[in-house]
Amino acid sequence: MKSEKFWKLVDIGNTYVHIFDGEIKHLRKPIKLEGDVFYISVNEEKEKEFLKLNPNAVNLKKYVKFKTLYSNTLGIDRIMACKTIKDGVVVDAGSFITLDVMEDGLHLGGVIMPGLYKLKEIFAKNSVLNKEFVYPTSIPPKNTAEAVNEGSVGMVVEMIKKYSINKKIYFTGGDGEFLAKILNGIYIKDLVFRGMIKTIKEDYDNSFAKR
Amino acid sequence: MKSEKFWKLVDIGNTYVHIFDGEIKHLRKPIKLEGDVFYISVNEEKEKEFLKLNPNAVNLKKYVKFKTLYSNTLGIDRIMACKTIKDGVVVDAGSFITLDVMEDGLHLGGVIMPGLYKLKEIFAKNSVLNKEFVYPTSIPPKNTAEAVNEGSVGMVVEMIKKYSINKKIYFTGGDGEFLAKILNGIYIKDLVFRGMIKTIKEDYDNSFAKR
Repeated sequence: MKSEKFWKLVDIGNTYVHIFDGEIKHLRKPIKLEGDVFYISVNEEKEKEFLKLNPNAVNLKKYVKFKTLYSNTLGIDRIMACKTIKDGVVVDAGSFITLDVMEDGLHLGGVIMPGLYKLKEIFAKNSVLNKEFVYPTSIPPKNTAEAVNEGSVGMVVEMIKKYSINKKIYFTGGDGEFLAKILNGIYIKDLVFRGMIKTIKEDYDNSFAKR
Repeated sequence: MKSEKFWKLVDIGNTYVHIFDGEIKHLRKPIKLEGDVFYISVNEEKEKEFLKLNPNAVNLKKYVKFKTLYSNTLGIDRIMACKTIKDGVVVDAGSFITLDVMEDGLHLGGVIMPGLYKLKEIFAKNSVLNKEFVYPTSIPPKNTAEAVNEGSVGMVVEMIKKYSINKKIYFTGGDGEFLAKILNGIYIKDLVFRGMIKTIKEDYDNSFAKR
């Protein structure tokens, strides 16, 4: 295996295929990649398409080591986002917003919320909502635009607050930067990829060393 | 005008037409009513249909007196739900969930959230959500069903908690009873109609007395 700088990391989501080769690209469809290709996927259809183009790509799901109290399977994207965080709350704000609680390297559980765009859509159909999210609002909100912002982004903010008392909050995903500013959190654009790199170095490489 | 027992009260919503004549009926469409008919409406189309059948019906919006700090027009259904509450938080949980804060008879403002059914739909499309809302969940949630319940009904509960510290909470609407149980609130099935009756007795009758 070549060194880290030749790795191509791929995170196949429901809406986008995210590719990391030093910088992050967001594509609608999988493409053929050169070098050592590692991937994770939450979308079976896109994964099949991707594997046709990249038959030697390594699925890191088979190798990743992760301690969790979750009683059913935790999404591989959530595992990777949490993998490099020992203590704190991890928020991945995409088409859904996942919140996960890490304590001393153990995943205690988490929450799945609708993404900000999905919440916006609910009101947009009734043509009440402003185009942009405005936050914070008056407390209590003093007009319809404020009322609807508090009832969408405000709900997400309150839920994150509930789980992050005295904890650091790490944000990633499309709306991560916006939420990090509101909640005074740490925005890490490539958090999922950092988890993938750690997985390759510690879990994947080790699994070969042991053979 | 005949006495209260001959009144027909009509609350025209976006989904249902609610009628009160001692008991509450929920209809999909307006019908012709006998007696003294009073109504409120948030749906223009259904209102037109209703007025064709009941041309003498009185729109209470023209008569209601209500003190608010809201800077734009407050929905007439929200006004009526709050009209009989001097102090406390009023939650009307229908296709949208409105939350309004009353203090010494003054409306301080409020929040508009997506209804529980709308939140449920977001997850249902991705076939993750249980059919029934399960609440409360483990803290933090320990599996996908719990994670999604916390990220839907849990968000609504947290938002109501935010505005009801040391306040009584009055619930009405389709999901009002469910939320009242969770938040130890008071469920009043006919809260909007109580507001309409108060409006007829205090504002509408007075407006005639003064003529």
